[in-house]
Amino acid sequence: MCCFGLILLISLASTLNSVCAYEPNWKSLDTRPLPTWYDEAKFGIFCHWGVFSVPAFKADWFWYFWKGPTPDPDILKFMEKNYKPGFSYGDFAPLFTAELFNPTTFAKIVKSSGAKYYVPTSKHCEGFTNWPSAYSWNWNAVDVGPHRDLIGELREAILGIGGVHFGFYFSQYEWFNRLYWTDKAANFSSQTYVNEVSYPQMVELVNNYKPDILWSDGDWEAADTYWNSERFLAWLFTDSPVAKNVVVNDRWGAGLTGKHGSFYSFSDHFDPGHIIPHKWENCMMLDKNNWMTSRTMTAADVHTLNELITQLARTISCNGNLLLNAGATHDGRIIPIFEERLSEVGAWLAVNGEAVYKTKPWIHQNDSNVWYTSKLRSTHNKNPYRVYNLQNEQNTIVYAFVLDWPKNGKLILPSIQVTSRTRAQMLGCKGALSVVSSQDGAVIDISQIGFTQLPSLTAWVIKLEYLATEVFDPVNDMIEKGWLTTDGFPLRYSTEHHRRSRSAN
Amino acid sequence: MCCFGLILLISLASTLNSVCAYEPNWKSLDTRPLPTWYDEAKFGIFCHWGVFSVPAFKADWFWYFWKGPTPDPDILKFMEKNYKPGFSYGDFAPLFTAELFNPTTFAKIVKSSGAKYYVPTSKHCEGFTNWPSAYSWNWNAVDVGPHRDLIGELREAILGIGGVHFGFYFSQYEWFNRLYWTDKAANFSSQTYVNEVSYPQMVELVNNYKPDILWSDGDWEAADTYWNSERFLAWLFTDSPVAKNVVVNDRWGAGLTGKHGSFYSFSDHFDPGHIIPHKWENCMMLDKNNWMTSRTMTAADVHTLNELITQLARTISCNGNLLLNAGATHDGRIIPIFEERLSEVGAWLAVNGEAVYKTKPWIHQNDSNVWYTSKLRSTHNKNPYRVYNLQNEQNTIVYAFVLDWPKNGKLILPSIQVTSRTRAQMLGCKGALSVVSSQDGAVIDISQIGFTQLPSLTAWVIKLEYLATEVFDPVNDMIEKGWLTTDGFPLRYSTEHHRRSRSAN
Amino acid sequence: MCCFGLILLISLASTLNSVCAYEPNWKSLDTRPLPTWYDEAKFGIFCHWGVFSVPAFKADWFWYFWKGPTPDPDILKFMEKNYKPGFSYGDFAPLFTAELFNPTTFAKIVKSSGAKYYVPTSKHCEGFTNWPSAYSWNWNAVDVGPHRDLIGELREAILGIGGVHFGFYFSQYEWFNRLYWTDKAANFSSQTYVNEVSYPQMVELVNNYKPDILWSDGDWEAADTYWNSERFLAWLFTDSPVAKNVVVNDRWGAGLTGKHGSFYSFSDHFDPGHIIPHKWENCMMLDKNNWMTSRTMTAADVHTLNELITQLARTISCNGNLLLNAGATHDGRIIPIFEERLSEVGAWLAVNGEAVYKTKPWIHQNDSNVWYTSKLRSTHNKNPYRVYNLQNEQNTIVYAFVLDWPKNGKLILPSIQVTSRTRAQMLGCKGALSVVSSQDGAVIDISQIGFTQLPSLTAWVIKLEYLATEVFDPVNDMIEKGWLTTDGFPLRYSTEHHRRSRSAN
Amino acid sequence: MCCFGLILLISLASTLNSVCAYEPNWKSLDTRPLPTWYDEAKFGIFCHWGVFSVPAFKADWFWYFWKGPTPDPDILKFMEKNYKPGFSYGDFAPLFTAELFNPTTFAKIVKSSGAKYYVPTSKHCEGFTNWPSAYSWNWNAVDVGPHRDLIGELREAILGIGGVHFGFYFSQYEWFNRLYWTDKAANFSSQTYVNEVSYPQMVELVNNYKPDILWSDGDWEAADTYWNSERFLAWLFTDSPVAKNVVVNDRWGAGLTGKHGSFYSFSDHFDPGHIIPHKWENCMMLDKNNWMTSRTMTAADVHTLNELITQLARTISCNGNLLLNAGATHDGRIIPIFEERLSEVGAWLAVNGEAVYKTKPWIHQNDSNVWYTSKLRSTHNKNPYRVYNLQNEQNTIVYAFVLDWPKNGKLILPSIQVTSRTRAQMLGCKGALSVVSSQDGAVIDISQIGFTQLPSLTAWVIKLEYLATEVFDPVNDMIEKGWLTTDGFPLRYSTEHHRRSRSAN
Repeated sequence: MCCFGLILLISLASTLNSVCAYEPNWKSLDTRPLPTWYDEAKFGIFCHWGVFSVPAFKADWFWYFWKGPTPDPDILKFMEKNYKPGFSYGDFAPLFTAELFNPTTFAKIVKSSGAKYYVPTSKHCEGFTNWPSAYSWNWNAVDVGPHRDLIGELREAILGIGGVHFGFYFSQYEWFNRLYWTDKAANFSSQTYVNEVSYPQMVELVNNYKPDILWSDGDWEAADTYWNSERFLAWLFTDSPVAKNVVVNDRWGAGLTGKHGSFYSFSDHFDPGHIIPHKWENCMMLDKNNWMTSRTMTAADVHTLNELITQLARTISCNGNLLLNAGATHDGRIIPIFEERLSEVGAWLAVNGEAVYKTKPWIHQNDSNVWYTSKLRSTHNKNPYRVYNLQNEQNTIVYAFVLDWPKNGKLILPSIQVTSRTRAQMLGCKGALSVVSSQDGAVIDISQIGFTQLPSLTAWVIKLEYLATEVFDPVNDMIEKGWLTTDGFPLRYSTEHHRRSRSAN
Repeated sequence: MCCFGLILLISLASTLNSVCAYEPNWKSLDTRPLPTWYDEAKFGIFCHWGVFSVPAFKADWFWYFWKGPTPDPDILKFMEKNYKPGFSYGDFAPLFTAELFNPTTFAKIVKSSGAKYYVPTSKHCEGFTNWPSAYSWNWNAVDVGPHRDLIGELREAILGIGGVHFGFYFSQYEWFNRLYWTDKAANFSSQTYVNEVSYPQMVELVNNYKPDILWSDGDWEAADTYWNSERFLAWLFTDSPVAKNVVVNDRWGAGLTGKHGSFYSFSDHFDPGHIIPHKWENCMMLDKNNWMTSRTMTAADVHTLNELITQLARTISCNGNLLLNAGATHDGRIIPIFEERLSEVGAWLAVNGEAVYKTKPWIHQNDSNVWYTSKLRSTHNKNPYRVYNLQNEQNTIVYAFVLDWPKNGKLILPSIQVTSRTRAQMLGCKGALSVVSSQDGAVIDISQIGFTQLPSLTAWVIKLEYLATEVFDPVNDMIEKGWLTTDGFPLRYSTEHHRRSRSAN
Repeated sequence: MCCFGLILLISLASTLNSVCAYEPNWKSLDTRPLPTWYDEAKFGIFCHWGVFSVPAFKADWFWYFWKGPTPDPDILKFMEKNYKPGFSYGDFAPLFTAELFNPTTFAKIVKSSGAKYYVPTSKHCEGFTNWPSAYSWNWNAVDVGPHRDLIGELREAILGIGGVHFGFYFSQYEWFNRLYWTDKAANFSSQTYVNEVSYPQMVELVNNYKPDILWSDGDWEAADTYWNSERFLAWLFTDSPVAKNVVVNDRWGAGLTGKHGSFYSFSDHFDPGHIIPHKWENCMMLDKNNWMTSRTMTAADVHTLNELITQLARTISCNGNLLLNAGATHDGRIIPIFEERLSEVGAWLAVNGEAVYKTKPWIHQNDSNVWYTSKLRSTHNKNPYRVYNLQNEQNTIVYAFVLDWPKNGKLILPSIQVTSRTRAQMLGCKGALSVVSSQDGAVIDISQIGFTQLPSLTAWVIKLEYLATEVFDPVNDMIEKGWLTTDGFPLRYSTEHHRRSRSAN
Repeated sequence: MCCFGLILLISLASTLNSVCAYEPNWKSLDTRPLPTWYDEAKFGIFCHWGVFSVPAFKADWFWYFWKGPTPDPDILKFMEKNYKPGFSYGDFAPLFTAELFNPTTFAKIVKSSGAKYYVPTSKHCEGFTNWPSAYSWNWNAVDVGPHRDLIGELREAILGIGGVHFGFYFSQYEWFNRLYWTDKAANFSSQTYVNEVSYPQMVELVNNYKPDILWSDGDWEAADTYWNSERFLAWLFTDSPVAKNVVVNDRWGAGLTGKHGSFYSFSDHFDPGHIIPHKWENCMMLDKNNWMTSRTMTAADVHTLNELITQLARTISCNGNLLLNAGATHDGRIIPIFEERLSEVGAWLAVNGEAVYKTKPWIHQNDSNVWYTSKLRSTHNKNPYRVYNLQNEQNTIVYAFVLDWPKNGKLILPSIQVTSRTRAQMLGCKGALSVVSSQDGAVIDISQIGFTQLPSLTAWVIKLEYLATEVFDPVNDMIEKGWLTTDGFPLRYSTEHHRRSRSAN
């Protein structure tokens, strides 16, 4: 009847968590299962940090908007007003001081947010490497500016604090690298830039910093064959020191978004509102307008806790992970309003994490603005070919994310069938809630919870448990729906409407 | 019976709001009534901004803690690590860039907080003047650094936005001014510094920027006779262009705190917990630890909305005004977490301002953590010799600031007597509340207010109104209590225990 | 017949070298005799050094030409091109680093030049004080920039090396000091600037650095009464710690140039070409175009050794001293080409100093481009009322400065009478020269001096000695010439045509 | 009898001035004849300019002496004193401002010196490229610092002024390039650095800036096979756009100095004092102690004109060219003392150039400190197989460089045979000089030249011409001397004793 069951494939994948030899072609690479940890993590923190953090004006794409094809008048005016004529982007580098940078503080803030992975920029499209790359001499964080191995220090601190995976963002192209220009001018028939810069840098990074995530970007102007993506990923998944656990996104060449990769990132801020069968990620920003920490950000630009929990709920309900960006400043800080929001998310997750980590999408994703995740009761024998349906299975737990307090305290959930065995509880609040069946669906009364008993002042989770016996065969169901071919391979999910329309980042 | 009635004097004062000729002695100066606007305003914003905003490290007293008698090891280390040897405090000035400073933005943020006056630092103890002082050549914000008249621009923006009074902080002494040193070495028998710097600067400021507040500081090492305070105030109150409306605090010479001035400021963060008969002010900071906007501030350092409303309630209940500091950055911004808190306060005041502005302390200040203000019903003929007692007077309104939600939603207020005519209402929430009398006092039930009806998620005000007929003669009452002499003059309230013990600011 | 004899007055003056009490009026001040050392010294080094040394572009008057009434287009373009908009002159101060400044090196270079006094700028018209003035807080070399007491260190090094007197230049006005502006706007009816800045600074300087020269400048917009010049000089000459030896120039108020002062400085580069009876000084520059050390100076801008010796000869022949400017750089150096020229002058003086130091003008100043000085043979009983005439007096020595090698090696000197007792010798070269009388005057043959015997490759001095007996009464002679009144007072030498027409300095 | 005749080979070479195809092996490369222009030029200007010009302290090797294996205590102290901790060499780059750089001024100064070629550093061992290299992104003069193509601008100005050839210095290695380190750590078995940096940079430079000189350096740690030197030179001499005229020095791999190359440079400051048969070059510095323009240079550090002419004479007499270094400053200037010396050299050459340009070494190189060059009288039919001997050939002109004026004006030249046909003249001075024969050799009397007739005050050239008839066969002579093999190939001149012992540059 209703849409569900993709969980099957994901569960299957997680059981095959060993390293195989992959060949440098997408067909082979696509057979690699997603390392379990990533799907279970659900929530990560992104960190844009670089030379753009010095002007910290307008966008992390400052350089491109300044010197690129269509200069931004605000940036032109900003530079004219505040810098001497001829001041170049390169001249900003020594002002990237990071003198207050304490990697342990960063790690504590990440940890406090409840995130399970951390993805700082190792190299943004500006080309400045936050590690001492041999392939970016005097344009890296050790040779100029911070004089510190930012990636190395962050990695050590993150691993030191425990419970958080470490990876990084890496831009394939560099807006203004002359070697890249030359290749581009040759219609990418030459690969000087790839051979001398981007490829050796990725190898250098992987060997030295053993990431669990390699978040590729800036691939879109050239095909995967230009970037040598298949070759790189075959090495990464087979022979690299992180072959077992590393995950990568899907930005490995023009036109490949949503086609290959451990998870799909589609466009930035991707929030489909329906399930996507392949694991995906919604990367979004704490500051609604900026990936970097902008100096002109106002309080109103920062997402509220409710908005953040809403995004988290919408994302994980639909098989995504949320990667929330909190950029750093030129002097090495995470600003207090970011710290505060992250700790609010963390406090919320401390109560409601059960509904987030290690959950699966449910057969229903949402009822209006109430979103669902699900979990099998841990005592059950996990059969990957079986998906338990809350409606009629005793081992399924369903979590309903209530993002707005219902007007009279009565929550109406059409997707939930109520039987005598249905149990409802607000996470963080003792005592069973009244659940009754109505023609509109289940009605749960939360009006009686006293003000001081509320586990949160915004966004709550109702945990629903049932006892059921009917068996559901999801594979047949999916074949009927056209999601699987008869030999069990997933059909490509149409991503036509997810074509990236990013203007800036 | 209980303590009240001082409101009388204040009310009296406000009626005499015209300019008289004052003589340069405290006796004459003390006769000047407090300009009405100040008492009615209740809430102002302080802004520490100066060269110290450049290092923005440790404290606004950075220079003193660095080069003063007992250097702070953290500052020594900070300078050693981040600046070239010999770098001086003066060298920071060109880095005070203020390139993002938009005075209208500042004014909007101040306005959004609900504050009724704004007090930026015109000159901090560092001596750098935020206006182009003729007496601080090349050590002011026009000659170096911002190259803008910060005070002038702020004044214009504040007055432009309307509804907010403008004044400024001014430090009498300058830690390291050699002229001051010379006077000090001479045991203040010479007055070169005063004659050549501080006195002409105050006159320059008053004439050019016509402040409604002159917030003096840095007076404590020398007597008022050294500073020529009496002479200055006589001019200020009589002949200056702001003679009618200006208010000043009490820092006009060693040992004079709490003795003279439009209002007393005592020590910083002054929060007596009981009424003070002379108008006073509690200057406190958004950042618990810093007057300046510190770069090392964490989210936890910033007062929560509840803490701020608590301070506001405690202060105005006891006849004080709250002056809340939100410093600016070296590049001319109010950081988002400050902007957010101030707008939260403003949103709270938009609902509850009736309980704050133009109120008077009530005869009771508090019941535990519930604090009171009062007001006469506006229709009443205001007789300054009459104080209306909520207990039994029909024209008194009492506001109870409920800072913590009572455990079971039942508020118990011992100071409130309940009659059949008692009316209770939560500000911002329609509908009368149940008020019953108990042996512990009035019991008001707020548990039935639905979550979505709550006007705030923290701190609420209950408005109490009564009908009563008994007349109370406060003057006699005060004479009996010893607060007034028989000829009507107030006895000096002992401020011995309020001696300032400030260590830093 | 011919012009001479003024030496008398000067000689007289030098015998009265003790401190008297002077009254604060020019009549009294003018009676002070010139301290002997100054006339004997003949040659000093001037040093312009200040914040203008940072841009080191166009002129030491950079600020004035930039922000003054008629901005210089080159400076406007220079600032537009090389500095951010709004960059102020004050912002240059921290860039005045002086990190390579070694006062001993300066002293050695001064000493190597043969100069007998050194006059660095203590405060240029820009107002920045090169000593830690209490009256120029944070606009002095200790508070910002060098972080060193430049004047104090230079003084110590100069006195330490011995044989060189120390004094300094001091600008009365400051182009852009707001206090000065105010006084000026009031037509100098107020004296705030003088009372608070210039006067106390001079007293501070004299007390702390005990100068032998106080070289006043920047006086020309206001009368001496505004500057309190008479009062200051009365104190300086009577009660100050340098009352005995200090000399001052003549820039003490509008219209007073060439009227009062130990020596007259008239305009810069003053080179009258005839004798001036009052001691005077020719201040000129190593760089023909600049007082500061300009970064755009070319080799051709630097005076050649011949030009320098020519100026020295022309100056001392006419009763002047030469004050040769060699400015310093922002990083605290005297550049090599200046060092080289000064040492060339010094090497020349090592040979020819006998014709310079402690000499007097002769009765004739020059024969075309050959200039004369004179001296009494030391064995003679010095009678101040007697002037010995080389023509016929046995005790007179005359030095002829030969600046161009005569075409055929035959020097013709019309002013020299040849007798059988005439002796001629080239200083630094052994052996008597042939001197014969001709109808054009004495003919001295220097063609026979071998190339390797030449004491110099440019400018030579011929020492001429005679034996004579006739007595000459110079006082009567001068009365006859109208140079003295019958009661012995000197008539004022007309300086009308020497009115300063300086354009920049 | 005496040593001469090598001129033959050089003359031969110049006749074969067309482009052949060279193979990438030394045997083939060594057959390339020297382009004529270089030998004729004799005198070039070297210019060290780079990021090291910012500290301009101690040496151009500042970085290496700071961060290399044995740090220089002075540099450590300099950095500690003047820069913040952690300040890196890369941080200097934005301070390399060159704001006063006018390439036309540079060209005029070069031209004024009489030099015929100019060799600025395109890339010093620091790795910073003075042109916008695609292989040194953000570590080049367009991306940071000057923001100008220094090499391009200098080339255009030099070619624009005419008569001066343009080339550049290029360092093969870069002290601290991580790619180079990696290769070095692998004992140069890998060539990543060469393939990605040095080789493509040379090709880029040659194609874009078409140099007449490529002055290689920094080769000494690795063999020519590592640098791909043979391959590069084969391309350079055969297929590059400058195949016809380019000359290169001999620094193309460890142990190859003095073995291959258009000219040999041996060690810096190479001054053998005897003839070297292969064309060579003496690169020396205007500042005795520094290749860069040091801020701590004193006047005494700068070579005198006599020292410079002496070096020029010693060098060209022995078959060398003189490459005189005059570095530039961080702000883009040639300092006045350098400009002055260069123009003094140029003024000297304006008189004596005839004895320098297009001359050949003579059979005798010197008589004590008198050095010789020679020339054939231009009217003569130039037979490359004939060398004319001044002693007895009518077509030979010999120039004697007299560096010290002889004591009594009598110059004694043992190598000169005097006949009745001998003519002697001082260049720049009309009239024949007396030449007589003595047992010590020719005696030339210059004592009678009047001071004002002297063409120079230091260093003079005597031009000697003869009429002679005897024919000399130099080929046989050289075969007898063992300088040529019987088949006409030159034997390798032993350079064992010229092994470079450079410590710094």
